[in-house]
Amino acid sequence: MIYVTGHKNPDTDSICSAIGYAEFKKALTGEEYVPARAGNLNPETEFVLKRFGLDAPELISNAAGKDVILVDHNEVAQAADDIESAHIIEILDHHKIGDVQTKEPIYFRAMPVGCTATIVYLHYKENNIEFKPAAAGALCSAILSDTLAFRSPTCTDLDREAAEAYAKVAGIEDIQAYAKEMFKAGSELAGKSPKEILYMDFKKFTAGNTTYGVGQVTSMDEDELKELAKTMNDYLHESFSEHGVDMIFLLLTNILDESSELIYAGEGADEVVKKAFTSSEADRTYLKGVVSRKKQVIPPLTEALS
Amino acid sequence: MIYVTGHKNPDTDSICSAIGYAEFKKALTGEEYVPARAGNLNPETEFVLKRFGLDAPELISNAAGKDVILVDHNEVAQAADDIESAHIIEILDHHKIGDVQTKEPIYFRAMPVGCTATIVYLHYKENNIEFKPAAAGALCSAILSDTLAFRSPTCTDLDREAAEAYAKVAGIEDIQAYAKEMFKAGSELAGKSPKEILYMDFKKFTAGNTTYGVGQVTSMDEDELKELAKTMNDYLHESFSEHGVDMIFLLLTNILDESSELIYAGEGADEVVKKAFTSSEADRTYLKGVVSRKKQVIPPLTEALS
Repeated sequence: MIYVTGHKNPDTDSICSAIGYAEFKKALTGEEYVPARAGNLNPETEFVLKRFGLDAPELISNAAGKDVILVDHNEVAQAADDIESAHIIEILDHHKIGDVQTKEPIYFRAMPVGCTATIVYLHYKENNIEFKPAAAGALCSAILSDTLAFRSPTCTDLDREAAEAYAKVAGIEDIQAYAKEMFKAGSELAGKSPKEILYMDFKKFTAGNTTYGVGQVTSMDEDELKELAKTMNDYLHESFSEHGVDMIFLLLTNILDESSELIYAGEGADEVVKKAFTSSEADRTYLKGVVSRKKQVIPPLTEALS
Repeated sequence: MIYVTGHKNPDTDSICSAIGYAEFKKALTGEEYVPARAGNLNPETEFVLKRFGLDAPELISNAAGKDVILVDHNEVAQAADDIESAHIIEILDHHKIGDVQTKEPIYFRAMPVGCTATIVYLHYKENNIEFKPAAAGALCSAILSDTLAFRSPTCTDLDREAAEAYAKVAGIEDIQAYAKEMFKAGSELAGKSPKEILYMDFKKFTAGNTTYGVGQVTSMDEDELKELAKTMNDYLHESFSEHGVDMIFLLLTNILDESSELIYAGEGADEVVKKAFTSSEADRTYLKGVVSRKKQVIPPLTEALS
């Protein structure tokens, strides 16, 4: 049995690409591939699974001894625990090349596209395998989620092609209307503690000797984001020592006007932000045009730290 | 301008996949892709280039500041110097996932096949681009070289399909007869010093805190190999401190009976060999059925060292 799993603190791509790629591999080989997850579902993904009548993938928090295919990540710090003791069979990803290593040659396919679900699409296409409607709906949702409905600078023509092909099979008639509905479901920040909000979509990275965490919260509601900037700034400073990192960053992204507010805590984070981005005021930065953590935030932070 | 380059101490795959993939990228995009090499040609590759009327790729020993596509490697220790300061655009490889990292998402395609030239073949096929005869001859040679004319356990059906498709365009009528001719040209050990023989095909690896080098010499001549085992064993012990590694291994591979003699030097190498392989006598090991450094020697050595 082979597990297909995304990263910790899974987003919609990590969950839906695991479902879609496991289904593809089963269809291709007739063997047992099981979609899995390395953490709890976020509200957006819950909405997506419910909408298309899909079960949540099996939770595997520890990968030791398991045969696994990684989707949507290739960094040890983002993977299920003990990934070094797992047998990694394949990797599908759309992030920078990280620190996962293997002892033997494997299938590793990374592409600079907006979403792993787009790479999954290529596998269906190259092997002439038809998608099933439910998985296609999930995979379409993953692309809309990762590309902010085609608005992110990470979005490519191939992402759009894939999303439209999936939407057709899934019966999604108006892609933008569906995306809006999905983002609204995903943006249910009300009733959540600051800690829950921080960990909704949070990833750890290492650059040189520095370990840092970067969270992202997206919303289409400007007022909600303004209030959140204050609450979360206080929370990051109060709770800093709990998070086990040298620096912590949180992006508050307004999807509609395509900008982000960057708040942060930790010794030296201020200088790093000043070095990485041009505009900056005390403890807070407004980043116009910045919506992609992967493409617009991690590279300058990594550069500034190394 | 983008360079396409294989590893240091280049073998036929590193040179010919650079030539073939640069030509593919030019045909696909109309932009300038330049085949490059990170070291001197070995006699086998010289034979291949002469046979198909191809120039040697441009030598780039230092990659700093250059835009590069890596073929046939993804380990920093094997790449052209200062690869960390290069801008890596893409990676095509058939080895284990190593330690090359990037700051941004890139195209990385690794597959557990016998040769990088087979992955190059997929790119031509997926994009409906026809090969040119000279490049096809070089790419076919790379597959025959890496798979020992389909005899290596690394060889897959896809390698065979690719080699046959290339051979047809290149006008190679009898693949096995051509392979024999190529191996004979590559096996020109006469007139070479032990040092030259060691560095004909030598790669460095790191496992835990140990740096080790593994060379491989292949021949179809049993007598030549027997004599070489003695000469090279003496040489490894005399010259050990010159090579800048903690342990050094040399595989003397008999292509025809598909076996290798493993000789080695360095403190602890004896125990590592005993742990990694079952049979072993003082300073020397006969490994029946072992012809692939990548698939049959590096994994057990890495395992034994970690």
